Amino acid sequence: MSKETLVGSLIIGQSGGPSSVINCSAYGVIKTGLENPNITTVYGAFHGIKGVLNDQLMIMDEEDPKELENMLHTPSSALGSCRYKIADPDVDDTDYKRILEIFKKYNVRYFFYNGGNDSMDTCNKISKYMNRVGYECRVMGVPKTIDNDLAGTDHCPGFASAAKYIATSFMEVSRDSQVYDTGMVTVVECMGRHAGWLTAAAALAGVKNDGPDLVYLPEVDFSMEQFVADVKRVYKEKNNCLVAVSEGIHYADGTFVSEAKTSGTDGFGHAQLGGLAARLTDVLKAELGVKVRPIELSLLQRCASHCASGTDIAEAFMSGKVAVESAVAGSTDKMVGFKCTRDENGYKCEPELFDLSLVANTEKKVPLEWINEAGNGVNQGFIDYCLPLIQGETGMVKEDGLPRFVNLKRVFAK
Amino acid sequence: MSKETLVGSLIIGQSGGPSSVINCSAYGVIKTGLENPNITTVYGAFHGIKGVLNDQLMIMDEEDPKELENMLHTPSSALGSCRYKIADPDVDDTDYKRILEIFKKYNVRYFFYNGGNDSMDTCNKISKYMNRVGYECRVMGVPKTIDNDLAGTDHCPGFASAAKYIATSFMEVSRDSQVYDTGMVTVVECMGRHAGWLTAAAALAGVKNDGPDLVYLPEVDFSMEQFVADVKRVYKEKNNCLVAVSEGIHYADGTFVSEAKTSGTDGFGHAQLGGLAARLTDVLKAELGVKVRPIELSLLQRCASHCASGTDIAEAFMSGKVAVESAVAGSTDKMVGFKCTRDENGYKCEPELFDLSLVANTEKKVPLEWINEAGNGVNQGFIDYCLPLIQGETGMVKEDGLPRFVNLKRVFAK
Repeated sequence: MSKETLVGSLIIGQSGGPSSVINCSAYGVIKTGLENPNITTVYGAFHGIKGVLNDQLMIMDEEDPKELENMLHTPSSALGSCRYKIADPDVDDTDYKRILEIFKKYNVRYFFYNGGNDSMDTCNKISKYMNRVGYECRVMGVPKTIDNDLAGTDHCPGFASAAKYIATSFMEVSRDSQVYDTGMVTVVECMGRHAGWLTAAAALAGVKNDGPDLVYLPEVDFSMEQFVADVKRVYKEKNNCLVAVSEGIHYADGTFVSEAKTSGTDGFGHAQLGGLAARLTDVLKAELGVKVRPIELSLLQRCASHCASGTDIAEAFMSGKVAVESAVAGSTDKMVGFKCTRDENGYKCEPELFDLSLVANTEKKVPLEWINEAGNGVNQGFIDYCLPLIQGETGMVKEDGLPRFVNLKRVFAK
Repeated sequence: MSKETLVGSLIIGQSGGPSSVINCSAYGVIKTGLENPNITTVYGAFHGIKGVLNDQLMIMDEEDPKELENMLHTPSSALGSCRYKIADPDVDDTDYKRILEIFKKYNVRYFFYNGGNDSMDTCNKISKYMNRVGYECRVMGVPKTIDNDLAGTDHCPGFASAAKYIATSFMEVSRDSQVYDTGMVTVVECMGRHAGWLTAAAALAGVKNDGPDLVYLPEVDFSMEQFVADVKRVYKEKNNCLVAVSEGIHYADGTFVSEAKTSGTDGFGHAQLGGLAARLTDVLKAELGVKVRPIELSLLQRCASHCASGTDIAEAFMSGKVAVESAVAGSTDKMVGFKCTRDENGYKCEPELFDLSLVANTEKKVPLEWINEAGNGVNQGFIDYCLPLIQGETGMVKEDGLPRFVNLKRVFAK
């Protein structure tokens, strides 16, 4: 950690799939950057690292500070995102040379990248490269992922808001799907290809007795036979069954259930149509002969800022703010994560810096001790972990009865 | 209209598909009934008319009045719903004799039925029967349908909250789906088999410049060729396209697009998988060769009470309240609808009574003059009609960061 004062401009970029609060983190960076005397100009990279490569930098100093506040309640990535995987500099350093050129052109001394695993990797590579070529630049990762799968940190900004939306929607669907006396099975598919955090969040609805009866995560091998038997049992008992499934559930051989061939691993041989929820619905209809409805939460779960968690909004902002403060104080090559305590004094969340190299490209999954033995539910351990994160409501301003999202002028640097 | 005072008990039943605010109407009936000296007991029919037939009546006087208030923010039908179509009494009067028996047993003099077209028909038949056999009972319809297709009334309780959720979700999805620079088409399917009100509501998001580019309603014949051409044009212009489609869109021959055979009317011959949005997605992927994502709002749109319209909540409550007050004052065989004005003085909504026989079994569609000539959007006429309805927010209480729904004791009459 360098103690020397470093004066120069700052770039913030956003990358990967957006969330309800990724703009809160970016706003934390932008606002803190604009207010810091060591930072001469704050630039927003248009569509992440591609904006740097293409010399498309938005001057955030040109935006109305009052308007920027609306970033706190605007989903998606206000600066634009990308899914650009940067090369290994030892193999191809074209991009890095270009980045260095742009950094020099605008005297960029602070670079912040707001995203998930891949973004932390990008961040780490840029940091190492700048260090190698002797260009002084402090590089910080500002985490974001609804998937909650970043290593080190207690949780990731973005996850809690998606979790709150999922739990709320499950409560509502639970009431709706039990309205008739004729019985119904409802299968709700949540995001999470490799980690089951979002699907597990459905279980929070159970705190209010309106939760799913069965929860299937990718952390555990899926068996179609067991699944059908589970649903049959619950339906027989309740004349109803609400199921949460992760898009990433897979058979023991690793095949995703959503992609398995008819004649293959599912063992039932039904025609397989549409997405995972539709596929499971077909199997249940054929095996149980009852009414089954599939629901896929799709993009809705990652952009429902109208149902964001107040805690998530505040923490996301804090992560951006702390990233700037730490970098100005001398930190580099770090990600701002959270260290949390949950005890008789309640929930407490403090920022903590993690080495980017430790975070990049590893995935944190739901611990097996939080999953029940039958592999069809989560236990109190998960609830105790997750419930504090969804507390508090959004302060979203409404106009015409609708959300007031940020509208940027997007003044590009010449 | 009889001016005579009628003393006796009251039954409220809920029927058909639920909504975010059907419980507000029921609460309007229950609260007003509990407070009225002419009404001796307020019963809630368990699962609508089936609860009457099965002698399953919940004594609402036994519920905690404070707890009942939570009905204002609880989706689905708190009393339970049914989809029971009552026979024509001239063909089979078994059910009517049984209803009369129950009415006599509990001295029921007020019967309120909370639902859509079919429920108004049930209401109307019961009213006529009781009149014919000389049993004095005042029968009132309390409307509910997210489909907004009841005749006479300006709009139906339930529609506005679904509309607000749909418009809000479109705004969020619009931001999310434009986040990358790589282009995307998003097809969002809304409910509405015969009337396009809910799908049209997506256009409200356009008031904030985050609306769909194209809107397809069942009021207009659908052409797959035109649809593909429309999306192509928008995508070419914007590198992005957000589409709202009603589940009920159909070809000129009346075939639903969701049900058309491959070799038949769609003219493209692609494999047709899953629901409508998935089907359209397959066609677009093949024809445009770009990234297309289907989203089906499914049950979420009819039970999202966390995003209910404050106006809708207040009006739904009013319709229940006015139903009781009108019946006590002597009205019968009516539905409580709304008469609204929208002018320079703003929006004003007054209750109005409609003959049940006029309302039962007719469907109100989106007027053709509110649909653009190309049949792929709605105009300002619809916006002016709909925007006032989604104003105001829910007063939903949260506990543990989650909705606080009503929990009824369900004390059944013996």
